[in-house]
Amino acid sequence: MRGTIIHGPGDVRVEDREDPTIQKPTDAIIRVTAACVCGSDMWPWRGIDEIQDPRPMGHEYVGVVEQIGDDVRNVSVGDFVVGSFMASDNTCEICESGFQSRCIQGEFATPGGAQSELLRVPLADGTLVATPGQPDPKLIPSLLAASDVLGTGWFGAVAAQAGPGKTVAVVGDGAVGLLAVLAAKELGAERIIAMSRHESRQKLAREFGATDIVEERGEDGVAKIKELTDGYGAHSVVEAVGTQESMLQAIHSARPGGHVGFVGVSHDVSLPGETLFAAEVSLLGGPAPVRRFLPELIQLIWDRKIDPGRVFDLELPLGEIAEGYKAMDERRAIKALIRP
Amino acid sequence: MRGTIIHGPGDVRVEDREDPTIQKPTDAIIRVTAACVCGSDMWPWRGIDEIQDPRPMGHEYVGVVEQIGDDVRNVSVGDFVVGSFMASDNTCEICESGFQSRCIQGEFATPGGAQSELLRVPLADGTLVATPGQPDPKLIPSLLAASDVLGTGWFGAVAAQAGPGKTVAVVGDGAVGLLAVLAAKELGAERIIAMSRHESRQKLAREFGATDIVEERGEDGVAKIKELTDGYGAHSVVEAVGTQESMLQAIHSARPGGHVGFVGVSHDVSLPGETLFAAEVSLLGGPAPVRRFLPELIQLIWDRKIDPGRVFDLELPLGEIAEGYKAMDERRAIKALIRP
Repeated sequence: MRGTIIHGPGDVRVEDREDPTIQKPTDAIIRVTAACVCGSDMWPWRGIDEIQDPRPMGHEYVGVVEQIGDDVRNVSVGDFVVGSFMASDNTCEICESGFQSRCIQGEFATPGGAQSELLRVPLADGTLVATPGQPDPKLIPSLLAASDVLGTGWFGAVAAQAGPGKTVAVVGDGAVGLLAVLAAKELGAERIIAMSRHESRQKLAREFGATDIVEERGEDGVAKIKELTDGYGAHSVVEAVGTQESMLQAIHSARPGGHVGFVGVSHDVSLPGETLFAAEVSLLGGPAPVRRFLPELIQLIWDRKIDPGRVFDLELPLGEIAEGYKAMDERRAIKALIRP
Repeated sequence: MRGTIIHGPGDVRVEDREDPTIQKPTDAIIRVTAACVCGSDMWPWRGIDEIQDPRPMGHEYVGVVEQIGDDVRNVSVGDFVVGSFMASDNTCEICESGFQSRCIQGEFATPGGAQSELLRVPLADGTLVATPGQPDPKLIPSLLAASDVLGTGWFGAVAAQAGPGKTVAVVGDGAVGLLAVLAAKELGAERIIAMSRHESRQKLAREFGATDIVEERGEDGVAKIKELTDGYGAHSVVEAVGTQESMLQAIHSARPGGHVGFVGVSHDVSLPGETLFAAEVSLLGGPAPVRRFLPELIQLIWDRKIDPGRVFDLELPLGEIAEGYKAMDERRAIKALIRP
């Protein structure tokens, strides 16, 4: 099969690789219908995350089950499935509490990289969710979004306790931030403030449900949020960047007693205890337990109630994936969908 | 009147000072029946918090209202009252959401220091809570505890979402930690693990409701908590120290999806974003909104259902307060009660 390997900063290549095989009776092999490039893939691509050895890339996927291990019960060959980037048994105490991203048996769901033709998924029963039938091709981008960026934005909004009567601010206008706006809207938030200075992203944020746009960043952005909320700050803030500035912007934008959901993968962030103590906001973040939300998100997409696939503004065949990385790095594209 | 002033590390003196007077129509003056020395008073006493100028000490108090401003409606002259260390209007959006410690009009409730004979309390209506009548003198220590250490331990347990079916770990065996144990018990926790290596404190922790004692600290303490919880970690952890080690111990002792309530005043704490991202626990802390809990706590004390005053193991007249600071610094006393 063909699959994507990163060799160094700015150097991703599509190569011939061994087909994955069932290694444990709980594995499934899927034929990838669509995959994509993640904002977090930019970290190694930009050389910020060190690349020790060439490694496969991609952790977002939808596809058709091609083979299952002997113990797999919940999905069958031929099913169209969506999975998370984290494999989970979906039965341990941590999974049952809704944190499948931290399953006691958990491991990465895409050891061979999802930006490829075939993919082995561990713990298939607890990781993969079949759609109600073979999907209308128009739904593929949205189902793919559910695999990570929608699930992650949704978790950010849930962790920030977005809901009726709440003012929600979203720091970050990448795909996750934009989909946190959509999530906040679906969760019933009264007011949604998108922090963005890019016109096309502002437009999509408004279409997803943002009621206000704030272009200022850092402490100026905080001041603007305070101004918009009678001096109190937002009830809920979603952080979808992962830098020191964005984390502090998020924490300071929330009112005391408010909630910050942080889903941007942290890079060189260090939070002073005194800042957290003084802010008195609830902080919850980490890799999103996408599996918790998948059944609900798939149904919303299936019923055409949400259209998160709109974050894909570039579509490429697998062989041209390097252009997807470049376009995202240069912010020419919000997110690139890849067809193997 | 006589009041306590700190002049430098290890140097607290009881001095003759001006009687406080009503400065705003929302103020009240109370005659202090009992005050005490707080764990947080140790920071300046030990020279860890810099003392720029001599300043009055004490922020925990019960007493009798001696005078009220023209706008005060909720307490009357002669009432026995308990107040928090933070003044609050108890009507703003932040107060209404239960975060009176961060009232939009908030200020310190004890500008003149509570370790004194008389005290001016701002925003008396929203800050002070009158007891159902003049209390039995035996209840004074417990009512005084409600003013801070009980309210703070209670907030820690609530922030950590202690409750039925939960395993709660408490880091710190000072008065706040011990009362977090009591709070967890009252909130219905199934299992309460007190982390302490002091025999007398372990004993009190058990009497307050601890089911297990862990003597190990740091990563060894974390390993022990994991061992006691089938490898998952505690559902709820209360941090009641405020150091880097204790914060990391608390965060790592909680299971993914669990909750950490941190109420130890942070000193030189810096939390790596990566650690928080990987831990995937909810974090909430800060100055406790004691006012939220006061009516309930006063009633529990009044009805003899809880006896938090047991944390006071030293009682001194105001003139001997310096010995209270010394005894607490040397850990000869858990907490010193002062009678002006």
